[in-house]
Amino acid sequence: MSLLPVAFDDVVAAHARIRGLVHRTPVVTSRLLDEATGLSVHLKCENLQRTGSFKFRGASHAVSRLSQEERERGVVTHSSGNHAQALALAARLQGVPATVVMPETASRVKRAATEGYGARVVTCRPTLEARTETTQRVIDETGAVLVHPYDDPRIIAGQGTAALELLEEVPELDVVLAPVGGGGLLSGTSLVAAENDVAVVGCEPLGADDAYRSLTSGDRIETHTPDTIADGLLTTLGEVPFRILSALDVPIVRVDDDEILRAMRFVWERTKLLIEPSSAVPVAALLEKKVELEGKNVGLILSGGNVEVHGFFSGLEQS
Amino acid sequence: MSLLPVAFDDVVAAHARIRGLVHRTPVVTSRLLDEATGLSVHLKCENLQRTGSFKFRGASHAVSRLSQEERERGVVTHSSGNHAQALALAARLQGVPATVVMPETASRVKRAATEGYGARVVTCRPTLEARTETTQRVIDETGAVLVHPYDDPRIIAGQGTAALELLEEVPELDVVLAPVGGGGLLSGTSLVAAENDVAVVGCEPLGADDAYRSLTSGDRIETHTPDTIADGLLTTLGEVPFRILSALDVPIVRVDDDEILRAMRFVWERTKLLIEPSSAVPVAALLEKKVELEGKNVGLILSGGNVEVHGFFSGLEQS
Repeated sequence: MSLLPVAFDDVVAAHARIRGLVHRTPVVTSRLLDEATGLSVHLKCENLQRTGSFKFRGASHAVSRLSQEERERGVVTHSSGNHAQALALAARLQGVPATVVMPETASRVKRAATEGYGARVVTCRPTLEARTETTQRVIDETGAVLVHPYDDPRIIAGQGTAALELLEEVPELDVVLAPVGGGGLLSGTSLVAAENDVAVVGCEPLGADDAYRSLTSGDRIETHTPDTIADGLLTTLGEVPFRILSALDVPIVRVDDDEILRAMRFVWERTKLLIEPSSAVPVAALLEKKVELEGKNVGLILSGGNVEVHGFFSGLEQS
Repeated sequence: MSLLPVAFDDVVAAHARIRGLVHRTPVVTSRLLDEATGLSVHLKCENLQRTGSFKFRGASHAVSRLSQEERERGVVTHSSGNHAQALALAARLQGVPATVVMPETASRVKRAATEGYGARVVTCRPTLEARTETTQRVIDETGAVLVHPYDDPRIIAGQGTAALELLEEVPELDVVLAPVGGGGLLSGTSLVAAENDVAVVGCEPLGADDAYRSLTSGDRIETHTPDTIADGLLTTLGEVPFRILSALDVPIVRVDDDEILRAMRFVWERTKLLIEPSSAVPVAALLEKKVELEGKNVGLILSGGNVEVHGFFSGLEQS
């Protein structure tokens, strides 16, 4: 454990730094979910976190760790997803300028949200090369500090604070489930769980199962072509998360898109929590009994709620 | 105050009786809602209550107050909405048989939910006469105790427990907003607020504004033909609520369906809470600045989350 790039104590320290910035999100239970799964499930509602996802924890922590000189130069990242909005607000609340590089194909809604949180958005062509070049250009021009969405010990320590709060509130948990994309949330969660002798299961879409394949083979897959509705989990498992999850021997289970959609609908209808498809991945793992957990106390991190609901409302307005 | 059919102490007593049955729902805040309204808003999430609405509080309390002999006879109500599901589960959890009279036009989803919570459903033609006759027949046959959805002091005392918890958690509130249909929730809320020197505002759809008209004229309207998307607020203000709200001089503001829909979408998108249109009514009153509240600490009861999301998911499955 001492050789890992992030330790449990780093998560505790991160929590002390960001406590006043992040929401302490509620933990909710659902009799219907318990009946459907035969478990006692505790949902940590990071969809109710500021900017609508757990990403605000890591981003807030990373910004809080900048030196005064770095704060003046500002931060930059490339993302069209939850990390973009999270870093934008985290920087704004701490008085740090932020630039977000987004592909020109990103939806206007996401761009507007990121700008609404106070970041400057720079667009680029939707290729990896253009993204890297554009980000580098921002760094060259402004001296901004790159804040990677997951492959960064400060981010991982921040994301672990969700599990820390969950275990403070429900210490009798046997196991915690979290989704895995780049692996920041699952790594932080695993560090906290290991310290408390609680098991962890990572949950991944079948159409983007590089973490499963990397961790079972022992060789990290560096590129893949994901195809899943869980648009928050398209990224490849990062190098730092790979090291942590390998060392802690964290198992990964997989669910397909139909299972993800059914689980998402179950959560919307039965718990009244608006979650995005990525959050439904661990719920699907429970509903489809992909893990043997009978009678256990289960914690589950609902990672985010950023889903486009336009279709629902345009339907209502026509009717 | 001493002449009112329900007193603040009744709400406190109700809370003590039902505390182990109901969820203590979270209170959440939203920076985006605060920015849009210029207020500090605290949302009491009764959409996260068991059965998806505050109705479970009143129903649980009414059932808890039955005598042993009444418990054996069971309970009955007529409802196709949230009270049906609430009474079904409240009765089941307390080991009391429940019958719900529903119009044959009620959606299969609602019927299935009510049966899922353990009630016997008896259908009737969708007229007031058929409903009354059918309910009376159930009472004649089984001796069941009628549990009215709002025109009952036990129900009102139970509904007030949401505001009681809200004020325990956020004692610095200046005002509490709640929707008004039959008036059970608003009456209970008003009793709690009055005791704590907190103002109250009732919020009503313009297309079902009988409470507004009844309370401003001083004569209770007994029938009306509502037309609003807020399907939880179609009922006419009850006699007991009318007496309480008149005595406490509770003001009512009105919003139209476009305002309700915009507010509902705002809550879905910005807070990730799935609410039904009725819950969006007080949110609309804030967003549309129907009440002069600048800079105030505002409590708002999000009354429920039972909304049909089929259209959203069928859209996703096709895409």
